Amino acid sequence: MQRIDNFKSIIDKYKVVFFDAFGVLKNYEGILPGIERTFAYLEEQGKEYYIVTNDASRSPAQLAESYHNGGLDFIKAERIVSSGMLTKEYLDLKVRDGIVAYLGTKKSAHYIESSGLGTLPISEINSKNIDQVNALVFLDDEGFDWARDLNTTVNIIRKRTIPVIVANTDRSYPLTTSDVSIAIGGIAAMCESVVGKQFIRFGKPDSQMFMFAYDLVRAEMNIKKSDIVMVGDTLNTDILGGNKFGLDTVLVLTGNTLAKDVDNRIIATGIAPTYVCETAVIDNADLGF
Amino acid sequence: MQRIDNFKSIIDKYKVVFFDAFGVLKNYEGILPGIERTFAYLEEQGKEYYIVTNDASRSPAQLAESYHNGGLDFIKAERIVSSGMLTKEYLDLKVRDGIVAYLGTKKSAHYIESSGLGTLPISEINSKNIDQVNALVFLDDEGFDWARDLNTTVNIIRKRTIPVIVANTDRSYPLTTSDVSIAIGGIAAMCESVVGKQFIRFGKPDSQMFMFAYDLVRAEMNIKKSDIVMVGDTLNTDILGGNKFGLDTVLVLTGNTLAKDVDNRIIATGIAPTYVCETAVIDNADLGF
Amino acid sequence: MQRIDNFKSIIDKYKVVFFDAFGVLKNYEGILPGIERTFAYLEEQGKEYYIVTNDASRSPAQLAESYHNGGLDFIKAERIVSSGMLTKEYLDLKVRDGIVAYLGTKKSAHYIESSGLGTLPISEINSKNIDQVNALVFLDDEGFDWARDLNTTVNIIRKRTIPVIVANTDRSYPLTTSDVSIAIGGIAAMCESVVGKQFIRFGKPDSQMFMFAYDLVRAEMNIKKSDIVMVGDTLNTDILGGNKFGLDTVLVLTGNTLAKDVDNRIIATGIAPTYVCETAVIDNADLGF
Amino acid sequence: MQRIDNFKSIIDKYKVVFFDAFGVLKNYEGILPGIERTFAYLEEQGKEYYIVTNDASRSPAQLAESYHNGGLDFIKAERIVSSGMLTKEYLDLKVRDGIVAYLGTKKSAHYIESSGLGTLPISEINSKNIDQVNALVFLDDEGFDWARDLNTTVNIIRKRTIPVIVANTDRSYPLTTSDVSIAIGGIAAMCESVVGKQFIRFGKPDSQMFMFAYDLVRAEMNIKKSDIVMVGDTLNTDILGGNKFGLDTVLVLTGNTLAKDVDNRIIATGIAPTYVCETAVIDNADLGF
Repeated sequence: MQRIDNFKSIIDKYKVVFFDAFGVLKNYEGILPGIERTFAYLEEQGKEYYIVTNDASRSPAQLAESYHNGGLDFIKAERIVSSGMLTKEYLDLKVRDGIVAYLGTKKSAHYIESSGLGTLPISEINSKNIDQVNALVFLDDEGFDWARDLNTTVNIIRKRTIPVIVANTDRSYPLTTSDVSIAIGGIAAMCESVVGKQFIRFGKPDSQMFMFAYDLVRAEMNIKKSDIVMVGDTLNTDILGGNKFGLDTVLVLTGNTLAKDVDNRIIATGIAPTYVCETAVIDNADLGF
Repeated sequence: MQRIDNFKSIIDKYKVVFFDAFGVLKNYEGILPGIERTFAYLEEQGKEYYIVTNDASRSPAQLAESYHNGGLDFIKAERIVSSGMLTKEYLDLKVRDGIVAYLGTKKSAHYIESSGLGTLPISEINSKNIDQVNALVFLDDEGFDWARDLNTTVNIIRKRTIPVIVANTDRSYPLTTSDVSIAIGGIAAMCESVVGKQFIRFGKPDSQMFMFAYDLVRAEMNIKKSDIVMVGDTLNTDILGGNKFGLDTVLVLTGNTLAKDVDNRIIATGIAPTYVCETAVIDNADLGF
Repeated sequence: MQRIDNFKSIIDKYKVVFFDAFGVLKNYEGILPGIERTFAYLEEQGKEYYIVTNDASRSPAQLAESYHNGGLDFIKAERIVSSGMLTKEYLDLKVRDGIVAYLGTKKSAHYIESSGLGTLPISEINSKNIDQVNALVFLDDEGFDWARDLNTTVNIIRKRTIPVIVANTDRSYPLTTSDVSIAIGGIAAMCESVVGKQFIRFGKPDSQMFMFAYDLVRAEMNIKKSDIVMVGDTLNTDILGGNKFGLDTVLVLTGNTLAKDVDNRIIATGIAPTYVCETAVIDNADLGF
Repeated sequence: MQRIDNFKSIIDKYKVVFFDAFGVLKNYEGILPGIERTFAYLEEQGKEYYIVTNDASRSPAQLAESYHNGGLDFIKAERIVSSGMLTKEYLDLKVRDGIVAYLGTKKSAHYIESSGLGTLPISEINSKNIDQVNALVFLDDEGFDWARDLNTTVNIIRKRTIPVIVANTDRSYPLTTSDVSIAIGGIAAMCESVVGKQFIRFGKPDSQMFMFAYDLVRAEMNIKKSDIVMVGDTLNTDILGGNKFGLDTVLVLTGNTLAKDVDNRIIATGIAPTYVCETAVIDNADLGF
C-alpha cells in the first residue's frame, strides 16, 4: 500500500520545483482552489519553480495570461517551459529558410515564427508552394478541417523529405470529468503510421523538456539535479520522464491518476514516483494558520 | 533476380482463382484495359473465380454494378467477398439487439443492417440513446465530420463495453498516381490507441476473408486449397494472407508493387509470392489470336 | 458487475463445445479435479467437443496421452486442434522440398515432418546446408541453446527469403502460481524485430485455429457457428478469437483471469465474453447427485 | 540525388565534433586506417571532439584503452560518453540502497557500482535476496545463460516494482560483413513485452546522451548547439538523435548505411542528415600532402 505524503514537507527538502500544469495546477473547471498558497509559500521560502507542460497551442505569454485570468498572478511567462518552445528552438536551429507548414490555430503558429521562416497552414499549401515547404509541424487539434487537411498533410510528407515535428506527444486530453478529446499527438501518430516515416516528437516523457527547464534554472543559480523535484499527475509522462532525467518525483492525485487506482497503476506500469501526495495545494493548517 | 511468369500458364494449373480488386482488375483510371479477356478465358476453361477485397464502403451488388459500368459484365455479386460481408456476418451472429453506431456513408451502413438491429451514424448518438449502442463499426472514411464524429466515437467506446469492428484494415488507399487518402483502417487505429481497447478487424491479410471465400467455393464444388491461386498487387495483404491460408500466390505489378522494387520488397519483407507476373491481363498472343 | 453463469446450463444450449486446455482443463498442478464429470456429461448428452490449444511442443497423440496419464481417458487425439497442426498443414501445402530448420525439441519437430521435407535443428544449419533451408519454424522454448541458436536463427533469416513460422503466439506461459516462463512466441517476436521481416503466426486469437476445428466438426455433422460455444480462461486469445470467429464464448476463472479482476479486465480491454463461469467443472449437485 | 560532401571542409565550420564509434572510427576489422589523421587535424586546429556511443559493456577507461591498442593514442577516456555512463548517473541519483541486479559481464557491472549499492548478476538473485533488489540493469548480451537468466529476469521484474534500465537501446550489432548479433536492447524489448511494464532506456537517438556530452563540453568552453556537428553511420540513432537535439549532422558511409542505399534510406525514413560524406577519414591530399 502506497504511503501518502504531505506536499509541504516534501518541497521543504528541495530548492526548485517543476510542476506539470493540467491535473496539478488546474483542471477543466479552472485553477485549483488554494493553489495560490503553494506559490506564496514557495516565494516566501525563496524556492524557484518552473511549469513544464506538453502544450504547443499557445505561447508562454498566453499561457501565463490564462493563469492570471484564473487568479494566479504569480506565474510569469519566463517560468513556463512548453513543448511548443522546444519546437521553436528546433526550427531556429535546424530550418534555415522556406515555409513551415502547420496543423493548428493561427495563434499556435504565431510564436514559432522565426526570422527567415514563414508559417502557412496546411490548407494553403498547394502544387505551387509545396517545394518551398522545409518543415511540417503538428501544433494543435483545432483550427483546421481534419478530413481535408490531414489528407493533404500525408501527401506533403510523402512528397517532401523534410523534418516533421510533433509539438505535443499526448494522444488525448480530458475535456470534462467524463469526456476526452483526441490530441494532436494522436493525430500525428496516425499520419506517421500511414506514411511510414519517422517524426520528431517534443514533450514529456522525453528528457529534452526537462533539460530545457534545467538549463534555464542553471542560468539563474548553482544547482544539481538532486535539488529539483518534479510534480505531476500522470505516471507515463511526468513521473517516467522526471525519473529518467534523474529527478525525484511527486505523483499528485488531482488529475489523471485516481486515489483508488494508484497502487495498481504503479505496479502494472512499473513507474514508481518518489512520493505520492493527495494534492499540490498546501492547506492553511500546514502553513500554521 | 525474381523470375517473371506468364499469367495464363499459371492459371492453367488451378481450378479456382481468387482476385484482389484494386491494383489487379482496376485502378484509379478504371477497369484495366483487356482484363475482360482474362475473365472470358476463365469462363471458357470452366474455372471459377472470386474477388476478395478489403472494401466495406459498398455492398457486393453495388461493387458488381461498378464493374458492369466499367465494361466488365461478367462479374456477379455472388462472386465478390468483401470485408464488409464479414462485418455483416459478425453482427448477425454476435449482436442480438440495439443500435449499431457507424462511421461511413449511409450507403455503406445500409447493407450491414440485420433484423433486430438498427444502424445510426455516430453523429446521431447522444446521451439519450448511447445505452442502446451494442456495437460500433468503422466502415468508410467518407460520410462524416472527422473532428466532431471521431471525438464522439472515442467517448462512446470509453463508456460502453461493446465490440468495435473495423471493416477494412487498410491504412491508406491510392487516389491518383501521386496521392493517397487516409483509409478508415488508419482512422480506427488512431482511435484504438487513444482508448486502449482491442478492436476486431476484418480484411486481408487476416485468414477469415480467405476462409469465407473458400467456404463459398466449397459449397459449389469439391475442392482443396491446392486447387486455388490468389492474385494480388500487395505483399503484406494479398500475398501474406494467401500464403498463410495455404494458397499459392501471384504478385502482379499493376498496382502497389512496382516492377523496379519487386526484388527489394520481397527480400526486405520476407513475403515471397509463388509467382510474379507483369499483369493479370491475358494478351491476345497468349490466347492464340 | 458481471453476472456469473452456471456452466452446465450454458452447454445445454449448444451442440459443440470448444475448450482451451491450459487454465480450463488443467493447470500446473495437473488435470482439474472433477473435469471428467464435464466430459462424461457431454458424452451422455451426445454433444461434441474439441480442444483448441496454442501448443506446438507435442503432437495431438502425445497431448492426448498426457490427458490419459492425468486420468482423463475420454480425450481422443482426433479431438485436439493445436497451433502445431496448422504449422504442419502450412508446410504440407506451401514448402515443397529442402530443409525445415526449427527451434524446439526433437519431439516437437517429429510430427511436423512431411514427405519430401527434412527437419533439422538450427544448431545443425551451417554454410554447407543453409541454401537448402526453405522454411524456419519456432516450435518450443526448450531443446536448444538460446544464445547460440537465436543468433544463428537471426542470421539465417537475414540471408534466406523463406517463410518463418511461429507455431505458438503466446509470449509467456505460467510455470507455477507465482512464476512464468518466456514462450517461443516472445522469442520469435524478438527475432522478428531484429530482422525486420514479417513472420507467419499460428494460434489463437487468429481465426485460422477456429476454422480448422470448425472444418473438422463440419466433416462429422451438419452444424452452424451458432451451435458452438468456445470456453477459455484468457480474454485476448480464447475470447477475442472466439468472438471474432462468430462463436459465443465462456470465460472461466480457473486460469489467467482472476475472479477479483474480471470486471476491470473486461472494461479495460473491451473484450467481453458471452458468459462468465467460475469453472468448466460441472459439480455433482448440477448433475442431480 | 544526395550531394556527397568533403569531410574536412565540413569540420572547418564547427568548433566541436561528436563522433559515433562503431561504423565511423572503427569496424569489426579494427580502427579505420587513416582515422588518426582526422584526430591530428582536429588537435592542430584546436577543435574539441567527443565520442558518443551506445555501449554499456565497458567503462570509458576500457573503451579508451581499446583505441590505444588499435593505434589511436589521442583518444582520452574523458572524451567518451557512453550509454553506460548515463546508467551510472541514473543509479547514483535515483537508487539509494540495496542490490542492482544485472545482465552482462562482471566487467560491465564493475564501473556502474556506486557507494551504497552492490551489484549482483541475475544468476545470484534468489528468494533470499530478491527483496533487496532495487534496480535491474540490462548491460551486455554476454556473460550469462540466456535461457536460465532471462526467465529469472522476467520473474524478478514481475515481483518487484523497481526501475529497469536498458543501458543500450540497439537491437543488434554487426559481427562480420555478413552476420549480426542480437544486442541487449533487443533482449530487453522481449522482456518488456512479456512483463508489460515500462523500462528506462539510455542511448541514441534519445537526447539525454547528447545532453550529457553537451554539458561536458560547456563545462570546458563557451559554446552553442550550432557550433557542434554530430558524425554517425546510422540514420535512426546518430542522425535522428543529433537532428532532434538541434545539431547539424554528417552521415558517413563506412558503416550501417551503404553508398548504394543512401538516397532510398533517407527518403524512406524521412531522416535527413545535414551532410553526407564517404568517410570521416581525412586523406592526405586534403591536408595538402
